[in-house]
Amino acid sequence: MAKRIGNYTIKMENSPQVVSFASVCGKKESEGPIGEKFDMVFDDTTLGEDTWEKAESQLQAECVNIALEKSKLNKSEIDFIFAGDLLNQCISSTFGLRELNIPFLGQFGACSTMAQTLALASIMVEAKIARHCIAVTSSHFCSAERQFRFPLEYGGQRTPSAQWTVTGAGAIILGEGNNKNSRPVIDSVTIGRIIDFGIKDTNNMGAAMAPAAASTISDFFKDTESSPSDYDLILTGDLGEVGSRLLCELLEKENIDISKVHSDCGLLIYDQKEQDVHAGGSGCGCSASVLCSIILDKLKEKTLNNILFIATGALMSPTSSQQGESIPSIAHLVNIKNNL
Amino acid sequence: MAKRIGNYTIKMENSPQVVSFASVCGKKESEGPIGEKFDMVFDDTTLGEDTWEKAESQLQAECVNIALEKSKLNKSEIDFIFAGDLLNQCISSTFGLRELNIPFLGQFGACSTMAQTLALASIMVEAKIARHCIAVTSSHFCSAERQFRFPLEYGGQRTPSAQWTVTGAGAIILGEGNNKNSRPVIDSVTIGRIIDFGIKDTNNMGAAMAPAAASTISDFFKDTESSPSDYDLILTGDLGEVGSRLLCELLEKENIDISKVHSDCGLLIYDQKEQDVHAGGSGCGCSASVLCSIILDKLKEKTLNNILFIATGALMSPTSSQQGESIPSIAHLVNIKNNL
Repeated sequence: MAKRIGNYTIKMENSPQVVSFASVCGKKESEGPIGEKFDMVFDDTTLGEDTWEKAESQLQAECVNIALEKSKLNKSEIDFIFAGDLLNQCISSTFGLRELNIPFLGQFGACSTMAQTLALASIMVEAKIARHCIAVTSSHFCSAERQFRFPLEYGGQRTPSAQWTVTGAGAIILGEGNNKNSRPVIDSVTIGRIIDFGIKDTNNMGAAMAPAAASTISDFFKDTESSPSDYDLILTGDLGEVGSRLLCELLEKENIDISKVHSDCGLLIYDQKEQDVHAGGSGCGCSASVLCSIILDKLKEKTLNNILFIATGALMSPTSSQQGESIPSIAHLVNIKNNL
Repeated sequence: MAKRIGNYTIKMENSPQVVSFASVCGKKESEGPIGEKFDMVFDDTTLGEDTWEKAESQLQAECVNIALEKSKLNKSEIDFIFAGDLLNQCISSTFGLRELNIPFLGQFGACSTMAQTLALASIMVEAKIARHCIAVTSSHFCSAERQFRFPLEYGGQRTPSAQWTVTGAGAIILGEGNNKNSRPVIDSVTIGRIIDFGIKDTNNMGAAMAPAAASTISDFFKDTESSPSDYDLILTGDLGEVGSRLLCELLEKENIDISKVHSDCGLLIYDQKEQDVHAGGSGCGCSASVLCSIILDKLKEKTLNNILFIATGALMSPTSSQQGESIPSIAHLVNIKNNL
């Protein structure tokens, strides 16, 4: 059975396996450096729907369907789906997945949601409470802009530290482990605490979230008595340029140097120079679609064998920011590896 | 270890215990029939804060603090907090609980959230992944009215089927079971599927949610091969008058008669005739504060010994309703009992 190690980390003993994974994205993401790695690209980002919210729901539905197809599992073999997104009342998940008829547990961790859904799904499989679980999340540039910033028609200007919300989704199906298939497994997870350093600039989410990432990464190294050189890759969710630099600086103060193995989904998904995304990609769909494409591909091919995935979330709302509040943040960590 | 029984139910083997519980409420709730049962009453529903959202955050913080005090546990003995609420991006939870420094997992199940947090918390304790977990949720009449309906100053009229959002919160601390203290335990949980019967009237949430409650209750009886007469109380979250009637009718069609043991938190919290609440109470804080006051009191006193708690959630947003969408709903069930 899973056991707690140190203060915050859960170490799996039954090796919940990545049975399948899928990613979908929009046109802009398909034109980026990893554009060819996604399972499906929607050049028309409306997905034929009449609102952006419905389009985002469709992203999640399509992504889950592809993951199900790849898994060769029947829907009835999936015991729980953990899903979430950025929209008010998480409507892209609830509307996108309502046809599935699978027990549903809605998660909210802002852009940390992919790590949160994956952590809880792996615990359910580890504890033998589920045979298989789906972890899924999405974001859509147009629904996020309208809800969190300005209607697209307004043509608002963006600051250099602003990030670009990814149109995309990622889904993973986890199942009971056995080493026959030599699939990547979830080895351990660290659930984050809410960290608030008082940052109030909603156009600089990377800065708000970096302390949460630093806290969770530091907790994990202490709990597991490991160090950055033990991992092939330390992949943060969507800190972007500003947040990534801050994360490395914060960890350096604790004598943890991740610079040689650190990468950030927000920096991988777009071409920073050519695609005019300022500080990088963001949104639940950013870390989800990057993890569920190029990263898990490499784990499957065994060109990566032991990675830390740390998705970070900014837990504010437009209302809290209008009321002058700072941005509480959180980061959850999932250690994914090949049992070689 | 916990095991799955039937299609949707998880049966606990380690009897996660209710270590402590707490409830807080506003003035109107304190004037209702169970007003004396709450741990703390805020006659000033601003709680001294300058916005309703901050007041609601404070409700959750106070409620968790009382539950912690009653448990005589140190914060460091709590391994996870499962929390959620109705506000956009769940800000009453994230802001209310950010000082706690406890690993945080944000949940969104609309008004089903208390059952969802309780179900996941009990699984973590059952699987020995946590020593103790907190499950908490809240709602506030004024923050909900502004976000979902009209600003209070508008003085909007309410339809007869409309429900009144409870200003309140409830929190439960679960811990590892041993029968020494003869505390109530979580015996089993059933996680719901999203059900959508096409109801579009956001002033009739009870009708939208009743089919979800019927589905989960029916699943539970099938899975456990039990029947309504096996329980002292079948307590739904906040179906109110309209939804409660519909629930009984829907279950009757399946030859399940719950009418002798059914009650609804939305009907218990206010005096329907005197308090002008139309179809009853609602909001995450409704089922949370009723469960964490009179109901768990009675379980502790052993005047109730075996209950089903089924919180129901309407998974729509104002945006989805404005776009003409129906109201997908969900219900999760928790069986709480005394091991006599």
